[in-house]
Amino acid sequence: MMQIIDGKKISAQIKAELKQEVYKLKEKGITPGMAGVLVGDDPASALYVGMKAKACRKLGIYFDKIIKPNNCPEIELLELIDSLNKRKDIHGILIQSPLPKHIDEGKAILRIDPAKDVDGFHPINQGLMLAGKPSFLPATPAGVVELLTRSGHKPEGKHVVILGRGYLVGRPLAVLLALKNPKANATVTLCHTGTPDIPSVARQADILVAAIGKAHYVTKDMVKPGAVVVDVGTNQIEDTSHPKGSRLVGDVDFERVKDVAGAITPVPGGVGPMTIAMVLTNTVRAAKQKLDDVR
Amino acid sequence: MMQIIDGKKISAQIKAELKQEVYKLKEKGITPGMAGVLVGDDPASALYVGMKAKACRKLGIYFDKIIKPNNCPEIELLELIDSLNKRKDIHGILIQSPLPKHIDEGKAILRIDPAKDVDGFHPINQGLMLAGKPSFLPATPAGVVELLTRSGHKPEGKHVVILGRGYLVGRPLAVLLALKNPKANATVTLCHTGTPDIPSVARQADILVAAIGKAHYVTKDMVKPGAVVVDVGTNQIEDTSHPKGSRLVGDVDFERVKDVAGAITPVPGGVGPMTIAMVLTNTVRAAKQKLDDVR
Repeated sequence: MMQIIDGKKISAQIKAELKQEVYKLKEKGITPGMAGVLVGDDPASALYVGMKAKACRKLGIYFDKIIKPNNCPEIELLELIDSLNKRKDIHGILIQSPLPKHIDEGKAILRIDPAKDVDGFHPINQGLMLAGKPSFLPATPAGVVELLTRSGHKPEGKHVVILGRGYLVGRPLAVLLALKNPKANATVTLCHTGTPDIPSVARQADILVAAIGKAHYVTKDMVKPGAVVVDVGTNQIEDTSHPKGSRLVGDVDFERVKDVAGAITPVPGGVGPMTIAMVLTNTVRAAKQKLDDVR
Repeated sequence: MMQIIDGKKISAQIKAELKQEVYKLKEKGITPGMAGVLVGDDPASALYVGMKAKACRKLGIYFDKIIKPNNCPEIELLELIDSLNKRKDIHGILIQSPLPKHIDEGKAILRIDPAKDVDGFHPINQGLMLAGKPSFLPATPAGVVELLTRSGHKPEGKHVVILGRGYLVGRPLAVLLALKNPKANATVTLCHTGTPDIPSVARQADILVAAIGKAHYVTKDMVKPGAVVVDVGTNQIEDTSHPKGSRLVGDVDFERVKDVAGAITPVPGGVGPMTIAMVLTNTVRAAKQKLDDVR
């Protein structure tokens, strides 16, 4: 029986659990707070920040949306980050990507207090993750791990093949899944543009993760019968039958691959909703940590 | 024709190159300097620090050996690190591991200025490596990459199978070898105690790296004919025919595996000598960086 893994449902479960935790934190006098910084007027970025604000408010997390003009000097953003680092009502800081070209994104991320880096992008958090130490995990890779675990496909003892070695998904996910802990402990193979024969490696996967950024890249013949297929891709393709003239598809040829896979995540509605759930998880954890520090 | 990869020779080449660079730096008024901190009186640790001191002095690198008693309070070590961070004549700081149990090693490493972390153990350097950004690379993994490249076995396009997911070798090496650069760009599989059938995965390797810590773990039947075998293991085994009653062996059953491998690193004399060469490389780079900063 083929299973379509419902990311929306699992994300909703996580949010419901977080809502309880937020409630308990408030009883103890702490309201988790997140600052979302938007620089410039890119409509997609504005939409993302708006979605995060809405998700926070639904859970009772305070959200402070801070908008800076497109020509905001780098130093002004860095000083804003300094002030957010100091604010006691803010436990998580999100700098919406991409930033205008005159601002060094790496510099901005380095400026965030690692204890408020709920995106898990600060090199200290990435390094602690690599070391297997407690840290804020990057949201999308952590979301994939959570999606697998909660849908009954624990990666432990499985061969996971990851297609794509990107900084945001492929590399950190490979690290996360290979760690010695009950949510991981998988044998991991990382493939990419330098891999001579991706299909033959992909066919070995018990769990195949596509994070390559090419619409319909994973075809039916690349999937072992019964394998779990996780599609991290988000590609806009032309579709004149759609009102917008385009639609969102993943890296997997869903309609054909679903006939051979044992389980598969759809796009949209698979990994996507998990990312925000993990950012919220990190924020609540950051607020809890603050409580523990005070005690 | 089977090749025994000579780590001593390649390490000597790297040191000869570094000696030239040190000479040039001195002409510009900078003497690279390293501080080696030894806490306690463990004879093996004292030996290692001594070896590093000797290697530095041979290259013209200033070495300051700092010895603290076994009961040195943690705060005293942290303040020592602070003072080394400030010293202009010191470009690299090594804290010899293991530290006495009352000192938190992670805390000590975090205290080192990342720009002087020539061991590449600071989470910031590990995180930058994971992000594919310039950083000090951890010495043993970087040494494996250098050994492969300089012995004519570039990992590019190859399938590398790493046995062992340790923090010091396996995990960072997996990250390094998968990056998109001419010294890496390999398809990487990371195996460990959670892998159900290691031999069948190992046999797929074009390059097999053993970093598992078990004497003679890799047997002939685990190696594809013609594969390159890199042995990172250092295990002391009993040997009554030896004057000391024991000898050093790797994770690979060298005598039998060499009959099937295309190339193999011996233990001792393979990866071992590369580690110190890479720490020296990092130190010279740290000193150069200082020069660039001044300009």
